[in-house]
Amino acid sequence: MSINRATAPLVDVPRGLAGVVVTDTGIGDVRGTEGFYHYRQYSAVDLARTRRFEDVWHLLVHGELPDAGQSAAFAARTAALRRLPAEVRAALPAIAAAARPAGALAGMRTALSLLGAARNFRPVYDIDADRRREDTLVACAAVPTLLTALHRLGGGLAPVEPREDLSYAANYLYMLTGSDPDPRRARAIEQYLISTIDHGFNASTFTARVVASTGADVAACLVGAVGALSGPLHGGAPSRALDTLDAIGTPDRIDSWIRERVLGGDRVMGFGHAVYRTEDPRSRMLRDIARQFGGPRVEFAAEVERRVEAILAELKPGRELHTNVEFYAGVVMELCGLPREMFTPTFAAGRVVGWSANILEQAQDPKIIRPVARYVGPEPPVAVPALW
Amino acid sequence: MSINRATAPLVDVPRGLAGVVVTDTGIGDVRGTEGFYHYRQYSAVDLARTRRFEDVWHLLVHGELPDAGQSAAFAARTAALRRLPAEVRAALPAIAAAARPAGALAGMRTALSLLGAARNFRPVYDIDADRRREDTLVACAAVPTLLTALHRLGGGLAPVEPREDLSYAANYLYMLTGSDPDPRRARAIEQYLISTIDHGFNASTFTARVVASTGADVAACLVGAVGALSGPLHGGAPSRALDTLDAIGTPDRIDSWIRERVLGGDRVMGFGHAVYRTEDPRSRMLRDIARQFGGPRVEFAAEVERRVEAILAELKPGRELHTNVEFYAGVVMELCGLPREMFTPTFAAGRVVGWSANILEQAQDPKIIRPVARYVGPEPPVAVPALW
Repeated sequence: MSINRATAPLVDVPRGLAGVVVTDTGIGDVRGTEGFYHYRQYSAVDLARTRRFEDVWHLLVHGELPDAGQSAAFAARTAALRRLPAEVRAALPAIAAAARPAGALAGMRTALSLLGAARNFRPVYDIDADRRREDTLVACAAVPTLLTALHRLGGGLAPVEPREDLSYAANYLYMLTGSDPDPRRARAIEQYLISTIDHGFNASTFTARVVASTGADVAACLVGAVGALSGPLHGGAPSRALDTLDAIGTPDRIDSWIRERVLGGDRVMGFGHAVYRTEDPRSRMLRDIARQFGGPRVEFAAEVERRVEAILAELKPGRELHTNVEFYAGVVMELCGLPREMFTPTFAAGRVVGWSANILEQAQDPKIIRPVARYVGPEPPVAVPALW
Repeated sequence: MSINRATAPLVDVPRGLAGVVVTDTGIGDVRGTEGFYHYRQYSAVDLARTRRFEDVWHLLVHGELPDAGQSAAFAARTAALRRLPAEVRAALPAIAAAARPAGALAGMRTALSLLGAARNFRPVYDIDADRRREDTLVACAAVPTLLTALHRLGGGLAPVEPREDLSYAANYLYMLTGSDPDPRRARAIEQYLISTIDHGFNASTFTARVVASTGADVAACLVGAVGALSGPLHGGAPSRALDTLDAIGTPDRIDSWIRERVLGGDRVMGFGHAVYRTEDPRSRMLRDIARQFGGPRVEFAAEVERRVEAILAELKPGRELHTNVEFYAGVVMELCGLPREMFTPTFAAGRVVGWSANILEQAQDPKIIRPVARYVGPEPPVAVPALW
């Protein structure tokens, strides 16, 4: 109902629920003034620098880093879930054909919805915590298979079957290209994926939790989250920063291009963040990764970064505008051979683990999330006019 | 992010956002103490008693009731959208096969996601209001076609092509059974569908608005809403009240059955409502409809209603427990020949118009809905342990 729910007084809050605490969480948070974010107490960047994706996945959904035996078992268990059920495989060509303009993310939304039904996912409050976690593993393990198959089908290529002997990240690159991935590229994407798993609350994570709060199944929650991620105000576009690099073109054009944008009041894509008042810790890590690859593209990106930060410091003093995660994420994904239309889908291939941890946490607390709307139209009732 | 968004102080609110005003709306509201709810000032029950579904649909998404010419044009325009694009038709057998246990609602979630891609739905902030509304019409018009095709395929029957010469409601019954529907049944379902379009804020409407607030396309918003509706704490089960009738069985068992439940602390399904302190206005209308059909089932339902209300008044004095919408909605849907597994999907076939109105309203105000979570775990950081 809108405003007369007898049990609760109305509470006015900032627009868009900004700053409204909707839940407690033990998953992690972001400390903008410290330039730090963590998963269950561990620096996310430290995890990305030192661990494999599967271990961090285990941390998120089991609550702790695995020991050696758990690590091997979890990696093997999730690798075995990469293969799709026959009903889903059969539907992928039709899904890819329909999703041609919308891309792999919209196709993945459809295919994940189908997968949940095919795997008989059950309402989260009707099953125990182990079964809920199992449903999230089934979904997460399938995401790279779905994304790469849809991408290839969209380009007229046959899907590449997943391999169980590769890591989550390496297998992702393998299924995308059909070739054994270069280990350095596989590791770079793995580090990007780890750094992307969670980053505090956002609209897709919130959507996943709202849907979970009704008791819906894991696929319903994830499909809602994928939908929210597809919104331009949320998912953004990790490829926009590369578009900026392309638009600038050459080092001699950096100054004039940037000054024109900033003085015209336009945002410079790839710079500035709503939370961090320091360098974005993800940027720092991804820049280090990019530097290890080296080459003219990386040098140009670094030059753009230096010049833009200097110009922004001059034109917008005190604003502390640095590169955000989009900037070097785009550079790294490009270095790893990912086409731009797969940047946001690749982001989703990491974030789905974060959504899953949030769904599992939400499901421990069976209380529906249901705010109210305030009716502000003219006062009812008016009589329904007689039919003409 | 979780808690340090620099721009907003933290705001603590009741659990589950109860009573938190998340948006203004002109669509309608529910007045629990008056036993009244409305769509844009018009009593929803009066609309259901006097208008056709398409006119109320027009009211919701165009903001006003149509005149005679607009009514005919809108009915013809939406009827022409009932037929599915080829990619979606081709995928329905696979979707129905996968959704066998989960049913038509889960299948519709998948098919609607596919339809949005096939029809090239665009991010809501990237298109004008006319195009956004058109996308909602395409989606809503397809929902009965999807639901009935999936239901028939699930039972081994071929889908029935939609007809443009029938009303939304009559065509729904026609596609379900393959026979010309009895006009009284078609009108009863039409009245049920009108009364179901909107009923204040709830978790699925809220989900649709959160996804819309990111700028995602209409399919992403609706798919999220369908997911939320599938949650047992939200969608409930309009068939549960019939299960109650079946469990009681005969009039002589009413008293003992109900007393046992109430004294045992169990809820009696079909009775009691979170908002209404009067009779639910939808119940009154649906009871009238049921009485026009008459017969032993309706007489038994009325007898159960009388006895349960008397017993509840005796055992829970002052609580004003009446039948809720589930009770006579179940009776009416049964009288109209709908199988129980189609009760919640049929609810969705009306509610999708309400979700659409909410998406269109949300899209007028490009501001992301993004609350925060409070990290309550142990204080970070802890060092990432060395690898074994």
